[in-house]
Amino acid sequence: MTSRVQVLGIGNAIVDVLARVDDEFLIEIGAVKRSMTLIDEERAIEVYDMMGPGVEMSGGSVANTIAGLASLGSSSAFVGRVADDQLGRIFNHDLQSLGVDVRLAPFDGGAATARSHILITPDGQRTMQTYLGACAELAVEDVNDGTVGDPEVVLLEGYAWDILQGPALLLEATKVAERNGSVVALSLSDALCVARHRGSFFDVAERHAGMVFGNESEMINLFDAETFDEAVARASTFGTLFVMTRTEKGCVVVEGDEVIVQDAYPVSEVIDATGAGDAHTAAFLSAHAAGESLEECAVFASRCATAVISQVGGRLDEYALNHLPDP
Amino acid sequence: MTSRVQVLGIGNAIVDVLARVDDEFLIEIGAVKRSMTLIDEERAIEVYDMMGPGVEMSGGSVANTIAGLASLGSSSAFVGRVADDQLGRIFNHDLQSLGVDVRLAPFDGGAATARSHILITPDGQRTMQTYLGACAELAVEDVNDGTVGDPEVVLLEGYAWDILQGPALLLEATKVAERNGSVVALSLSDALCVARHRGSFFDVAERHAGMVFGNESEMINLFDAETFDEAVARASTFGTLFVMTRTEKGCVVVEGDEVIVQDAYPVSEVIDATGAGDAHTAAFLSAHAAGESLEECAVFASRCATAVISQVGGRLDEYALNHLPDP
Repeated sequence: MTSRVQVLGIGNAIVDVLARVDDEFLIEIGAVKRSMTLIDEERAIEVYDMMGPGVEMSGGSVANTIAGLASLGSSSAFVGRVADDQLGRIFNHDLQSLGVDVRLAPFDGGAATARSHILITPDGQRTMQTYLGACAELAVEDVNDGTVGDPEVVLLEGYAWDILQGPALLLEATKVAERNGSVVALSLSDALCVARHRGSFFDVAERHAGMVFGNESEMINLFDAETFDEAVARASTFGTLFVMTRTEKGCVVVEGDEVIVQDAYPVSEVIDATGAGDAHTAAFLSAHAAGESLEECAVFASRCATAVISQVGGRLDEYALNHLPDP
Repeated sequence: MTSRVQVLGIGNAIVDVLARVDDEFLIEIGAVKRSMTLIDEERAIEVYDMMGPGVEMSGGSVANTIAGLASLGSSSAFVGRVADDQLGRIFNHDLQSLGVDVRLAPFDGGAATARSHILITPDGQRTMQTYLGACAELAVEDVNDGTVGDPEVVLLEGYAWDILQGPALLLEATKVAERNGSVVALSLSDALCVARHRGSFFDVAERHAGMVFGNESEMINLFDAETFDEAVARASTFGTLFVMTRTEKGCVVVEGDEVIVQDAYPVSEVIDATGAGDAHTAAFLSAHAAGESLEECAVFASRCATAVISQVGGRLDEYALNHLPDP
């Protein structure tokens, strides 16, 4: 019998296509800066044709967190769907080479592996145009005791609610988790995504999740609050642990009456904000699993997020870990 | 009638898979540091399975130079073969989005698009394990007046001599070039590649080429010389323009009796040496086409090479051009 996996993620398996663009380009393609927009294959080809040269690397929000956990030495696993194509093999390779237990084999005969066109403006901010492809074919039957098992934490991706069977399969995942004694964690993904699925997210946060991760605007949306302080106050009424990131304002951790405010680390230049939140979540989960205090978790998460925004690409890799700011 | 293309490159169309490794890893896979080794598909899968997560981006030595020329505003074109697969479409997109006239369509039904596993050690040096795939299917009939046309310069890739019809198609390319009044330029690619094809390269340098680009060890190999000074002395007896790079020792430009010695620019940290030579060639050709003096060409080439080694990836892109050292 193998030892219990620390974190299993369920989410979108996406290859990022990163390119630098100017703000004009976002206007030209009608994209809202810093948002994630879902596009179909035809539009994906259109956007790609308009873009300059790109760099391809494995991404996906929860997949980034899972990769980060593996880089940090935590045992981790992933459930998400890629096609049996070159990008799908790249995606699986990149997770597996870190030691992540990838639970689903590439799927033959459906849509191509998902691609997210990540447009990085000169201020280091990213705007995403995502073609979900094979991700959208993740099905309820992919989530069961065999694929999910009994990890300590099951991390659900907010974006996964956007796929056809998403709501049903994520509900199934919470059932498997609760049956097997796993803590359910929810990553809110994106403010617009929260707006799309607010009821479901609120229900998970209130009734199922032990932990909720998101940024300021996602949390405000989740609680339908006017201000961040109101969101914090609402969160305090839950038993759930909330980890709320605020970019240059650091992060706030809320667990009942305990509210921890952590400053961000100074960064000389934001190279690429992609994955900062995902790295923050990975580091927080890793420190939390190691039994660190919430303050210590917040410090480590902030350091890891800083390292990721100082490089191109969204994963908390060995290079980023070698370039952590001093605590 | 369209205006004359400044530089057309003929070479290998390769997608790079870049990953950081330690020196131990090179020993483990039996790779000679800083060399390029050709591998078959089975071995490519083996090496990839042993590697950590990678970053994928378009590469290929002469293709890098052509992309660099386009970024510098020169009109350029490329002849090389990709498969009709995801990596092939990425390769063509990346050149086309810069304005490069890609002359061959992706080829359906043959081998997959080429991949070069570029292993970057902590000292920033790169060791390449290349699976040529579709590149190896470039054929003599792909090189003709229709595909090559009458550019000012036809740049030939040394590595292309390694493919089955390489010697024949490159000979054909020199014929087309000479018939249409194009200057033949030769990029020596790699010292071991020069050793494999010394006779052919020497013949091209002596009888066909107006320009030869290579690094110190490639030039020593080309002239079968004992020392770099001997190679310079031999080069002086040709009418051909030789551009010889020497990493941290800068570069030497030789044209008959004229010998120009250019110091390298200081660089705080070599992040990734991939493409430094290709960027050097692009910048030199661009300045040369603009009628600059050989001294000015050498200065500009050195500045561009410095910018490329200070970032991950081998292409002289907009970002690198925004980070040129002061002259």
